[in-house]
Amino acid sequence: MSLKEKTLAQKQIFQGNMISLRLDTVELPNGKESTREVVEHPGAVTILAYTEEKELLMVRQYRYPIAQETLELPAGKLDHQEDPARCAARELEEETGYKPGTVELLGTFYTSPGFSDEIMYLYRAENLEEGEQCCDEDEFVQVIKLFREEAVEKISKGEITDGKTITGILWPDQ
Amino acid sequence: MSLKEKTLAQKQIFQGNMISLRLDTVELPNGKESTREVVEHPGAVTILAYTEEKELLMVRQYRYPIAQETLELPAGKLDHQEDPARCAARELEEETGYKPGTVELLGTFYTSPGFSDEIMYLYRAENLEEGEQCCDEDEFVQVIKLFREEAVEKISKGEITDGKTITGILWPDQ
Repeated sequence: MSLKEKTLAQKQIFQGNMISLRLDTVELPNGKESTREVVEHPGAVTILAYTEEKELLMVRQYRYPIAQETLELPAGKLDHQEDPARCAARELEEETGYKPGTVELLGTFYTSPGFSDEIMYLYRAENLEEGEQCCDEDEFVQVIKLFREEAVEKISKGEITDGKTITGILWPDQ
Repeated sequence: MSLKEKTLAQKQIFQGNMISLRLDTVELPNGKESTREVVEHPGAVTILAYTEEKELLMVRQYRYPIAQETLELPAGKLDHQEDPARCAARELEEETGYKPGTVELLGTFYTSPGFSDEIMYLYRAENLEEGEQCCDEDEFVQVIKLFREEAVEKISKGEITDGKTITGILWPDQ
């Protein structure tokens, strides 16, 4: 049996700077109708960047939706039609000041496929060159360096709570 | 320096079955104003349920926002004021037919803290008792059993792409 849901109608509810919201009417596999709330997102990148000393670059920042400071891997959303690898290099440099010599795609995943199309590209960055941090105007981040084992311990202790960051740190064969 | 952003105004944009959308005006650490788009979500659970044969229960389902079938850990959103542990037991039984003898909280994380407050409670379920699958009316899922090593391989190969599922499977000390 196909599990596919067929789109019958789409309604745009909201168009924002980061996300848009759509309310769709769908036909379910059993022929019945239902609605689906879809948060449209341009996609984003997360970067595992290791220094020469094998320390992982992380950023502390305030996340307004959860009203907390979080410790995360450097990350950011794709600009319009931006190549994800270029975005990874740009975001790493903006948030940490480090410019990567190479970036390699480790994998992709969806952060919340139940209500959003956000796709996350996970990159490993190497051969870092230290430069100057220059955030977006409304972005305030502090750079922190951790060994991977320390980061894994922080996951176990509940001190790292950002999903994409946990996924990145625990990613196999990195 | 505090990274906190202060709420100046809140505007409700949409109220749906699964999510709501708010547009807030905030004061940034530098005193400037900006807006924040916030997707409100009731929170959800993800369950690592191992059978006696040490196989992990997984579900294949259609995810409308990404127009794909995905292979995921059993999961579901909290009903109004529902206890997460009770939700974990309920969702596991609804989606797979297996009733857990015990559920243990492994950790919590945020799926997309850049634009949503969705919190995910990760449970380990044990002492499963096989029963009958009885999904929600608009939910269609197929149950699949995998050894954890097979699931990790599917992550590496890009065959498991759901963020909470990857986080759950790779969770340390499970």
